[in-house]
Amino acid sequence: MRLAEYTDYTLRVLMYCATRPQQMVTISELAQTHGLSRNHLMKIVTDLGRQGVLQTTRGRGGGLQLLKDPARIRVGDVVRASETDFRLVECFAPDSNLCTLSGSCRLKRVFDAALRAYFKELDGVTLADIAGPPISAPGARRALSPKGRHPAKAVTVSASLRQPARKGTSHA
Amino acid sequence: MRLAEYTDYTLRVLMYCATRPQQMVTISELAQTHGLSRNHLMKIVTDLGRQGVLQTTRGRGGGLQLLKDPARIRVGDVVRASETDFRLVECFAPDSNLCTLSGSCRLKRVFDAALRAYFKELDGVTLADIAGPPISAPGARRALSPKGRHPAKAVTVSASLRQPARKGTSHA
Repeated sequence: MRLAEYTDYTLRVLMYCATRPQQMVTISELAQTHGLSRNHLMKIVTDLGRQGVLQTTRGRGGGLQLLKDPARIRVGDVVRASETDFRLVECFAPDSNLCTLSGSCRLKRVFDAALRAYFKELDGVTLADIAGPPISAPGARRALSPKGRHPAKAVTVSASLRQPARKGTSHA
Repeated sequence: MRLAEYTDYTLRVLMYCATRPQQMVTISELAQTHGLSRNHLMKIVTDLGRQGVLQTTRGRGGGLQLLKDPARIRVGDVVRASETDFRLVECFAPDSNLCTLSGSCRLKRVFDAALRAYFKELDGVTLADIAGPPISAPGARRALSPKGRHPAKAVTVSASLRQPARKGTSHA
């Protein structure tokens, strides 16, 4: 019952950006901080861009910025979008369910309820709740302003957090 | 966030036995019913024996029987004993935690709470709740009686459901 590492690092990328609201965060910086490969991070960042959570600005002075207020990003939604396999027991996948007990078994209902309880907890918590206070950034290369949030070079793709797609290539 | 197949099949073995209280269930019967290898099943059965949940009787006329009333076997305890990895995020494993956010991060507490909510649901359900009504067994090879529950040949090992060990060799 392990959460995918992908989800673990997705949350950390978001938390890192949330604590640096006035800073363009770079892939290199994230790679160094978390000891992760750039490829792995670029995949995460691309997905978050497609979900409309993160904005990627290319080129010199570019980087990553949250597109949403951390107080409006629910941990439950991030986990739902990031995790791809919630198959708790075989009967969760009707196509491959060979279980002969299915007729009388109430196991699926039980695990459905447990999963709902799990996400109810996560839905009550936002990125702002877990990320800690913003870090002042004397070395920040670019301050956020209402105008600066959507510069011409920004690459953003809006999509529902609940419908992740992971095949993009754009990155900082 | 997938439950291990091992847990899935552990639950099915228990449910199968619970619906046949007056019958000695054999490994062959379980293997045929669930399309599982005997080796896989023997490992499950050995663990359940060590946990004091299942009794294995060797030899002709032998087989598997529940040692506990299904109404006293909580699904949560079965899952806890069967799953070996509850690491939801890196900081769940303090020895290998390299996350630089650990100091200010409240993520661990959030996932701890979600996991508690998940198990609270599972702890409210017993094997009797999920297994369905007992199946009458006209072909049962041996009826259970207060005396017959612990025959001389029975191999049982008591251990806490919360401390599984999977290295035994006894089987039906």
